[in-house]
Amino acid sequence: MTVRVGVIGTGMIGQDHIRRITQVLTGGTVTAVNDVDAARAGQVAAGLPGTTVHATAADLIADDGVDAVLVASWGPAHEEQVLGAIAAGKPVFCEKPLAPSSDACVRIMEAEMEAGRRLVQVGFMRRYDAGYRAMKATLDDGALGLPLLMHCAHRNPSVPDYGFTTELIVSDSAVHEMDIVRWLFGEEIVAVTVLKPRRSREAGADLQDPLILVFEMASGALVDDELFLNARYGYDVRGEVVCETGTVALADMSEVTVRTGNRHSGRIPVDWRDRFILAYDAELQEWLNAAAAGTSTGPSTWDGYAAAAVTDAGLEALRTGQRTAVSMAERPEFYAKAQ
Amino acid sequence: MTVRVGVIGTGMIGQDHIRRITQVLTGGTVTAVNDVDAARAGQVAAGLPGTTVHATAADLIADDGVDAVLVASWGPAHEEQVLGAIAAGKPVFCEKPLAPSSDACVRIMEAEMEAGRRLVQVGFMRRYDAGYRAMKATLDDGALGLPLLMHCAHRNPSVPDYGFTTELIVSDSAVHEMDIVRWLFGEEIVAVTVLKPRRSREAGADLQDPLILVFEMASGALVDDELFLNARYGYDVRGEVVCETGTVALADMSEVTVRTGNRHSGRIPVDWRDRFILAYDAELQEWLNAAAAGTSTGPSTWDGYAAAAVTDAGLEALRTGQRTAVSMAERPEFYAKAQ
Amino acid sequence: MTVRVGVIGTGMIGQDHIRRITQVLTGGTVTAVNDVDAARAGQVAAGLPGTTVHATAADLIADDGVDAVLVASWGPAHEEQVLGAIAAGKPVFCEKPLAPSSDACVRIMEAEMEAGRRLVQVGFMRRYDAGYRAMKATLDDGALGLPLLMHCAHRNPSVPDYGFTTELIVSDSAVHEMDIVRWLFGEEIVAVTVLKPRRSREAGADLQDPLILVFEMASGALVDDELFLNARYGYDVRGEVVCETGTVALADMSEVTVRTGNRHSGRIPVDWRDRFILAYDAELQEWLNAAAAGTSTGPSTWDGYAAAAVTDAGLEALRTGQRTAVSMAERPEFYAKAQ
Amino acid sequence: MTVRVGVIGTGMIGQDHIRRITQVLTGGTVTAVNDVDAARAGQVAAGLPGTTVHATAADLIADDGVDAVLVASWGPAHEEQVLGAIAAGKPVFCEKPLAPSSDACVRIMEAEMEAGRRLVQVGFMRRYDAGYRAMKATLDDGALGLPLLMHCAHRNPSVPDYGFTTELIVSDSAVHEMDIVRWLFGEEIVAVTVLKPRRSREAGADLQDPLILVFEMASGALVDDELFLNARYGYDVRGEVVCETGTVALADMSEVTVRTGNRHSGRIPVDWRDRFILAYDAELQEWLNAAAAGTSTGPSTWDGYAAAAVTDAGLEALRTGQRTAVSMAERPEFYAKAQ
Repeated sequence: MTVRVGVIGTGMIGQDHIRRITQVLTGGTVTAVNDVDAARAGQVAAGLPGTTVHATAADLIADDGVDAVLVASWGPAHEEQVLGAIAAGKPVFCEKPLAPSSDACVRIMEAEMEAGRRLVQVGFMRRYDAGYRAMKATLDDGALGLPLLMHCAHRNPSVPDYGFTTELIVSDSAVHEMDIVRWLFGEEIVAVTVLKPRRSREAGADLQDPLILVFEMASGALVDDELFLNARYGYDVRGEVVCETGTVALADMSEVTVRTGNRHSGRIPVDWRDRFILAYDAELQEWLNAAAAGTSTGPSTWDGYAAAAVTDAGLEALRTGQRTAVSMAERPEFYAKAQ
Repeated sequence: MTVRVGVIGTGMIGQDHIRRITQVLTGGTVTAVNDVDAARAGQVAAGLPGTTVHATAADLIADDGVDAVLVASWGPAHEEQVLGAIAAGKPVFCEKPLAPSSDACVRIMEAEMEAGRRLVQVGFMRRYDAGYRAMKATLDDGALGLPLLMHCAHRNPSVPDYGFTTELIVSDSAVHEMDIVRWLFGEEIVAVTVLKPRRSREAGADLQDPLILVFEMASGALVDDELFLNARYGYDVRGEVVCETGTVALADMSEVTVRTGNRHSGRIPVDWRDRFILAYDAELQEWLNAAAAGTSTGPSTWDGYAAAAVTDAGLEALRTGQRTAVSMAERPEFYAKAQ
Repeated sequence: MTVRVGVIGTGMIGQDHIRRITQVLTGGTVTAVNDVDAARAGQVAAGLPGTTVHATAADLIADDGVDAVLVASWGPAHEEQVLGAIAAGKPVFCEKPLAPSSDACVRIMEAEMEAGRRLVQVGFMRRYDAGYRAMKATLDDGALGLPLLMHCAHRNPSVPDYGFTTELIVSDSAVHEMDIVRWLFGEEIVAVTVLKPRRSREAGADLQDPLILVFEMASGALVDDELFLNARYGYDVRGEVVCETGTVALADMSEVTVRTGNRHSGRIPVDWRDRFILAYDAELQEWLNAAAAGTSTGPSTWDGYAAAAVTDAGLEALRTGQRTAVSMAERPEFYAKAQ
Repeated sequence: MTVRVGVIGTGMIGQDHIRRITQVLTGGTVTAVNDVDAARAGQVAAGLPGTTVHATAADLIADDGVDAVLVASWGPAHEEQVLGAIAAGKPVFCEKPLAPSSDACVRIMEAEMEAGRRLVQVGFMRRYDAGYRAMKATLDDGALGLPLLMHCAHRNPSVPDYGFTTELIVSDSAVHEMDIVRWLFGEEIVAVTVLKPRRSREAGADLQDPLILVFEMASGALVDDELFLNARYGYDVRGEVVCETGTVALADMSEVTVRTGNRHSGRIPVDWRDRFILAYDAELQEWLNAAAAGTSTGPSTWDGYAAAAVTDAGLEALRTGQRTAVSMAERPEFYAKAQ
């Protein structure tokens, strides 16, 4: 069965997912699109024969020619669109963050539980990266003992001088580590502290860049996470988990080693697409496979909620300079087997 | 358009390509299969709803529901099947070697030239490997000057004690380097020498393993190629091109680094599938894309012919212990632009 | 001129320095020894023809056959012995810590300033390590911009279950990073925070192992320092300085790469001696060279004092769980040019 | 005991050994020098108080203030000087090559055997390199099975356009691998072939650079050795021994990894001094230690002879383009236990 996908939001990320479904993955086709910018939606649809342009997200969700919904609109619109898909009983892939507030995430959880089956996959694509997968396999294998702490770094070459705020470093960038450490350690984050290193002169005037976030896990394990959005030299995501008898770290993945000018060197990715393209492919293929069976797997609404709750604590910790406990509901039985 | 593929040969490699077309790639579907072992063809078809089992390869090629043909049968059958597909005007992907003799390859070239357009892609998948692609991009960039020599190693953990002969090391294993060095250097191999190192006791009694092949390129560049089929420790394909002002080498591509027991270590692939799975995906996606347009791109019949001619020289060099010139026809204009 | 060295303290470290002076380095000879355990001193002297055993450290310092004094006794004895050497006008190498309290360090500074020339070198050997030297050269070169933060890890395979306390992790282990980051960044540490990750079950029952120390530099740069004394897998000292346009990190220094059992791997040092032996050689050769000229260079009394002041803050931070400011005197002009 | 060394030849290498003995190593002093250029000898002695300048090498050898002789003169003078030292019963360190002809080496062997004890150490310093030592330890450990073949590369950034000939690549550069593979494999080289890759335009007009030498060991193991004297990018000595169940290779030994400009990179040595300085230190310290006991250890006259015999075969192979058997005398019992 080919899953007929309706795509809400046809900006950069939406277009990238459309390319993926139509040119890379198997088992899916894009039959409908919608965007707040109708002209943009029309242009995108022009390149996709047989694709309907809908005036509203609700129309798209209601379309009988749409089996599953991909939400790539801006964050504030997510809640309504995801709830709409759930109400229609259609599997929905929602880009992160699931919703801007943890309350909104709770409402989505309630709707999904009422629907009685997993319908939502949240776009935490790092879980599909070969590096993080190998890291988790090594941890789960148990040969290194229990994980005690983790060092993370999340370096971006640059962000726009305007519009990118220190809060966004927490809510938009660090959210990836919030999810991945929960998944790697198999437990929740219970507190967050934010440290402010010396500011880079490469960063915009209002931006505290870099930042260090410290996550405390339920077990007591600590994670320090360097966020550096104007690292200039490349897109570099690093991680090392320190266990009782050894460590496991993401490796540099350059395809070739060049020896010239008294250096041996390898390539560092230029951007997130370069670094994680295979992970994006894999997450969406998994979604298409599950959608063909009328459900969703992968990162769940609970995972979206947990990330939102940790983000709330992180933003408060940024404001106050204090260690801030994460306020989180109890995990419903319904989501017990997710991950 | 979805390309309807007929697969001839449903052994291990054929099944892997079927899995690829149906579960990984986009734009293709398998509508017909054939195998000398009819029962095996039937079992494979059973898992593919709507797929026809043909009694003969000719029937499959003639099937109106087949747009393009994938040949994964045993080598001696390739010539007839590829010629059949060309006669039917259908794009054909043929696993390496294109044909067991260079004469047979010449006949395929003649048929394809008569057909007037590229219809054949030969399964030299290494050209689609990210490592070799980056290596070629580095060479073509020119910053390192001209390539002068190359060191290759092709290590397999093991081969069967029965049936695997020293000749097969040349014709079946080294053929990959024969193609890749032609592609990397952009020129033909003009002579081959075979050296015999100390034999491993891990190899079967009749096998001279490892071997070192030395290829002389038309420019005078030399390639030494270690072939070690019972290397035991893993599947390890290495290569370093030495240029006038620097070198470029395939890098180890372990996803994670583990530190334990006084070692820091990374993974080496366990087999060819593990090492080259993405290259196989990419070569076949390219074929599907070209087949949708009624043609083929990628490694051409000429490339298949050149590899066969070098193999002939390699086998004679193995027999005689002497440097052996490659006997090769002039490259037809028709194949001038083949990659 | 051959410097005649008197060694106070003939335990493991004292003996190692004696071996160094007599069997590895040039320009020095050991003419006198002293130890609180007279028998041990006698045994060590027995292997060194012409070496006098002194009953007290004071006698050794007063010996006309001693040009320079090496203090490798236990910490509480350092102050009196170093002051003795200064009073005698003899260059003195003192193992770290210079003295157990910052007050004692102040007294040594006052005596040395009164003497009017540098006489003391403190045993911070990491400054002589090729890795840290290359790191500092890279930072000082300026091509990477200003240093903003640093990640350190200091992993030891094991410590004794008895006698090794959490306080010692700060005062005995982290003291190495306290000095090296001051030297690398060229500025003082102004505050310390101690974080407590999940405890390893491999550590003794009373030990909080690992720890993370966070150092704030005068410029605002932050350093996170993982101290893990029962890391089991090896002796592993890591460091990465993150600058405005790039980073520089200590590299793994394995002599060979082994490929076997599906892993490519390199060696991790087994202990501090294995890791830093060349640094120990270099620091003591520098001392001998300076002593021949009647002075000392290298890490100064000020550096010993600064490390003591940071240790004081670190111990309080460990006790209180709070960020603790470092209380430090102003740097005297006399020490302005110390490295 | 301090060994009083007389140095014959005060050019670049002789001066470097003098620096080593006087400023780096222990147990030696330079008491006499001689050079065909008396002025140069005088200048060198001027910096060494108490050092005698001798008019002839024979005078230096006869000097009662000289316990041991270091020969760093040009090759044609080695035989007479080494024989002189043997006749005087004084340990002698001789830079490689021991003598320009294998016949001369035979005469030295005969003299040394008549003297009845090892007096000669030949300057094959690679045996003291930490990388090669670790490689040999891995091979001798036996866990990887028997060595079957080895890949070597010996890359120099540049050689003078004048005076450096293709023959010198064999006799002066490849001689290092001739010795090291004999030592690593513990057996003799029985034949040599020379292959000529495409010539680099960076090389002088008369130079065939690079070259590939193929050594056949007595066991049948093969070694391919790339010699590239104008490799431009750095001084890079590589080696990988392929054994039955794994391989061991020299590792890159950069002290730090730098991440900038989308590359992670490490340093490659700039010249032989940079790469092998610790090996030079270690070989000469071993010689001083043995000389103090009136003998020599390390690479022996036999090793010097064997290298000369392989060089002879290599030069003929270069001339003829043919595989050339090495003509070598039987190894005397006297040299049976040499390393």
